[in-house]
Amino acid sequence: MLDELKSLKEQLLFQEKFEHGYFKNIVIAGMGGSGIAGSIFSEIYDESPVEVVSDYTIPAYVNSDTLFIAISYSGNTEETISAYREAERRGAQTAAITSGGTLGKICRKSLIIPGGLQPRSALGYMLVPLISSLMHDHSKDLKEASKVVENIDSMNDRIKEEAAVLVKAKKLPVIMGFKPFKSVAYRWQTQFNENSKLLAFSASFPELDHNQIMALESSYGKENLAFYYFSGASGKVKERIKFTIDLTGIEAKQIPVEGSSRIAQIMHLVHYGDYFTYYAALERNIEPREVTTIEKLKKLLSQF
Amino acid sequence: MLDELKSLKEQLLFQEKFEHGYFKNIVIAGMGGSGIAGSIFSEIYDESPVEVVSDYTIPAYVNSDTLFIAISYSGNTEETISAYREAERRGAQTAAITSGGTLGKICRKSLIIPGGLQPRSALGYMLVPLISSLMHDHSKDLKEASKVVENIDSMNDRIKEEAAVLVKAKKLPVIMGFKPFKSVAYRWQTQFNENSKLLAFSASFPELDHNQIMALESSYGKENLAFYYFSGASGKVKERIKFTIDLTGIEAKQIPVEGSSRIAQIMHLVHYGDYFTYYAALERNIEPREVTTIEKLKKLLSQF
Repeated sequence: MLDELKSLKEQLLFQEKFEHGYFKNIVIAGMGGSGIAGSIFSEIYDESPVEVVSDYTIPAYVNSDTLFIAISYSGNTEETISAYREAERRGAQTAAITSGGTLGKICRKSLIIPGGLQPRSALGYMLVPLISSLMHDHSKDLKEASKVVENIDSMNDRIKEEAAVLVKAKKLPVIMGFKPFKSVAYRWQTQFNENSKLLAFSASFPELDHNQIMALESSYGKENLAFYYFSGASGKVKERIKFTIDLTGIEAKQIPVEGSSRIAQIMHLVHYGDYFTYYAALERNIEPREVTTIEKLKKLLSQF
Repeated sequence: MLDELKSLKEQLLFQEKFEHGYFKNIVIAGMGGSGIAGSIFSEIYDESPVEVVSDYTIPAYVNSDTLFIAISYSGNTEETISAYREAERRGAQTAAITSGGTLGKICRKSLIIPGGLQPRSALGYMLVPLISSLMHDHSKDLKEASKVVENIDSMNDRIKEEAAVLVKAKKLPVIMGFKPFKSVAYRWQTQFNENSKLLAFSASFPELDHNQIMALESSYGKENLAFYYFSGASGKVKERIKFTIDLTGIEAKQIPVEGSSRIAQIMHLVHYGDYFTYYAALERNIEPREVTTIEKLKKLLSQF
């Protein structure tokens, strides 16, 4: 698993792109560790509408004006394949990012990425081609991102300690994000699920100030939860975080962001969470790579 | 509060529409109890891309091809007003749904809805104009929706009992949705937050089968959570719900859906949650209407 984590710095320098023509909107289909590449991309790209679909079906508006990108690391995710076939039928411009599998076969324009990793450990291979193919040159930012994640690879004792504190207290994490780190908060949630086999939850400012704040103040059970938020907010959102903590009296730990570009900051926080959830697994004596129940479920569904 | 809940059946027969011209995409800005109208709408409308913005800023693609709809029940939500002003500057076609306030003044094309309710109790007034103005005639479905919510108004002892079970066990709810009830799961979450002052969480099939399922099986702390899912799934998603519960051994309670049209089913589940969270508040001896901390936060922010 550590080898997989340490491959992210190289993944961020991945050079491959996919070709595309003119489009009016983008739909990205992907589930779990593959879908998160689409969600992170949709937070940094906003030149046209982007919808991330994590389901079997696609919206009615998908047609020849749509650039449809299927992302499945294995290439065998049934929801993504189903969505891809529907997009083809609708005449959408299609592309795929995959290490092979069925998707690699049926999509003529597949961008084939290196295989052999857990999908959630291959985020760089799935995210970088989206950025390189659809945004202005961000190679400088991606180099910076590679640098900041390498720094975490070489120094993460503090993260290990924080993970141990969480697990020893038997608390479940709640990660509070804000734009452009909403998807990062969700990434942490899913990494806690898969790596640490822990339930975890995410929310975002300023939305949570319109509902969750009422519960943060006086819900029972909040003593069983550990709250985390990211540094790096500015303006009103920064004030909101401060006031929300003050007014509700929750204990919330700040996760420090590093890097100057948005992409580097995002990848720093992603990788911080990768290590946090990896160490939380070790602290629980749990194998972080193991996802037997997901495999069992796939087998059951294939018989259906 | 009961009066507010019972007004939903009339809200669903609300006849007002807003005018609009040709557009290529829709952006809806709204926070909390107002934003949820946009989220529910985006799950049933898919003729063009819809993005729901719950933030101060709007995506770069917003221009004269965009129909921008600001929803703020009070008309004074700072994020929504900020997003609205930006959309005006970009030359978007703008509309607003509000009971008045600043938004009612600055938006020439405001659809003014009846005031005096808690925003979260005015969902019908905010959702129905979106449906009536942007979709083919759904008056039959809205009538059916009005009927099914009225049925809940007149018979909800079972919901009261279920709420008492949750609160007595001091568990926090996790609501599992699926399309087109993903936003309903989130609505329940926020109603637990505001009405019952309870932390609550939501997730959706099939996405959760790619991550959360690992934690459902072996996370510590799951004994402090109560899992709920909606009936009415079909095909693969139905199988997934069954297999997920079987494989992980969680105790998950089914919330029955009623109604034949999608809109009626959605509103049935919404209203079920309205009562569930209302009764959970009473069981905790908490005033469901009270949202003092949100008011305090607004005051603090206005000084900033």
